[in-house]
Amino acid sequence: MSTIVMEYLTPHIILRKGLIAGVRYPRLAKDMGEFLGRTLFLSSDLALSSAAKKAKVAVFCGNTAMCNLSHDVIFTDPYAGSKHNHHTSPQLDDVASALLGDAEAKVAVSQLKAKFMTDTQALLHGDLHTGSVMVTEAQTKVIDPEFGFFGPMGFDVGAYVANLLLAFFAHHARGLADAANYRKWLLGQIVETWEVFQKTFEDLWTGGSHKGDVYSPVFFAGDERAFAHARQAYLAAVLRDTVQFAGAKMIRRIVGVAHVEDLGGIADAEARARCERAAVALGRSFLVNPERVARIQDIPVLAEKAAGGL
Amino acid sequence: MSTIVMEYLTPHIILRKGLIAGVRYPRLAKDMGEFLGRTLFLSSDLALSSAAKKAKVAVFCGNTAMCNLSHDVIFTDPYAGSKHNHHTSPQLDDVASALLGDAEAKVAVSQLKAKFMTDTQALLHGDLHTGSVMVTEAQTKVIDPEFGFFGPMGFDVGAYVANLLLAFFAHHARGLADAANYRKWLLGQIVETWEVFQKTFEDLWTGGSHKGDVYSPVFFAGDERAFAHARQAYLAAVLRDTVQFAGAKMIRRIVGVAHVEDLGGIADAEARARCERAAVALGRSFLVNPERVARIQDIPVLAEKAAGGL
Repeated sequence: MSTIVMEYLTPHIILRKGLIAGVRYPRLAKDMGEFLGRTLFLSSDLALSSAAKKAKVAVFCGNTAMCNLSHDVIFTDPYAGSKHNHHTSPQLDDVASALLGDAEAKVAVSQLKAKFMTDTQALLHGDLHTGSVMVTEAQTKVIDPEFGFFGPMGFDVGAYVANLLLAFFAHHARGLADAANYRKWLLGQIVETWEVFQKTFEDLWTGGSHKGDVYSPVFFAGDERAFAHARQAYLAAVLRDTVQFAGAKMIRRIVGVAHVEDLGGIADAEARARCERAAVALGRSFLVNPERVARIQDIPVLAEKAAGGL
Repeated sequence: MSTIVMEYLTPHIILRKGLIAGVRYPRLAKDMGEFLGRTLFLSSDLALSSAAKKAKVAVFCGNTAMCNLSHDVIFTDPYAGSKHNHHTSPQLDDVASALLGDAEAKVAVSQLKAKFMTDTQALLHGDLHTGSVMVTEAQTKVIDPEFGFFGPMGFDVGAYVANLLLAFFAHHARGLADAANYRKWLLGQIVETWEVFQKTFEDLWTGGSHKGDVYSPVFFAGDERAFAHARQAYLAAVLRDTVQFAGAKMIRRIVGVAHVEDLGGIADAEARARCERAAVALGRSFLVNPERVARIQDIPVLAEKAAGGL
């Protein structure tokens, strides 16, 4: 790697590390919301003709090794007692074992897995956790696109939301000086990121970037209310997917094969397990009852409630 | 074409012609239900590994010319006043013109079109109306697969259901001697076809043909109730899609570019328009309120009700 690139990269750190250290990034929500809005809108059937979109889908159909990894570790292993799973033991033995017999969760996660495998809504990053983002106070860079594939938009948005929530739960036990305020900042990031995402997405849709064969402004010309309703319904469906995928991802990071440092780095197993237990409970409720989140502002409310005993 | 093939084909007629003539085909529901169950299950992520399935999806991504034709004439033109549209005029002028300002229908048909364009659930025939089926009393052959693509299962099932319903409405004005009983037979075909489809599909799922990466019998091993619930939820979602796609197809065959002979062949324009008006009303309610059909048996009930004034 050249010196120039090294100099460029040196001041950036991985977002997860920054969140663990309690750093606030003033541009983060705007940058991530715009990244999500632009990448997801511009690779969807809203922006692309059906023929152009399907040609891109065909290219990414080859990336099955990475997709298979995702669908095993996220949607299967935590509910199937994979030998690769691990968790804070013995404190969470009951949580991990309950998932194996959790009929509701198994049905919901199967539906979600099928959506992950069949819905080619947009070109996703495919692994958008806080370890895939590099930040300074002035810049945000998304890295590691090797999981890219055409899938449901909520998979990317949900990955990011899930990781902010895991940071939120972890900061009940990490001993940060300003923890209560920082947790509020983390929950605020979820709302602000979604709001920027939604605005970016709708601005592209209504502002001339719609070149696709469905939901065209022309199709709704003369009925602005119907067009607004169509956009709301579209984004409400993305929010619902976001909530479910976020739930699945919170669960798998606590009882699956790959954990996150936010929680894993809490040395006191009892304290760590309490945070993890609350996070799994919220994740499961997101997975099984996504309708509890009617609007993005419900997520902080439900997260605070789930963390009530911590 | 060789003599042998010609001899083989000679006794078969196009199903639509047979339905117009009031012929009953004793094997039809069984053959079509099995055809749908086998083709849809065996090309889905239930039967195929994700890698094998995605390789097939990539191949069919190239068939965009036919898909574009479908999505324009089914999901756009009837609601956008295409110059190619036509209808029984002046009797249905109000019906055709109401669709252009029907906000609910436009939002619903846009959601359905997006599903058609992005959901790669199974390899579909893609144009499964009663003109794509050749029959004798002893045999059923599905022809004309040039619209094949990976899409939502309900698009195929719904096409077939819609065309049986159009035949049902037409037989209120075609003057068939035994019309009332024949209409009952047509509605019975819808129920029986779905029941055979569902049984075929579930038998493959539970009987050793599941080789895919989702909804595996192994994943649900030890909890037969959860597995049964997962299968029911899967097929309930296919039924919902079926109802909506059937609705869109009934509408487009009456106010879009391509009509069906069942209705188009009714010489008396007043009588034809009455049948068509009732069919469009049912189609619209299927499109906008698919939850009215909770089980397949609701379709005959709603169809009889919609035809009540005929």
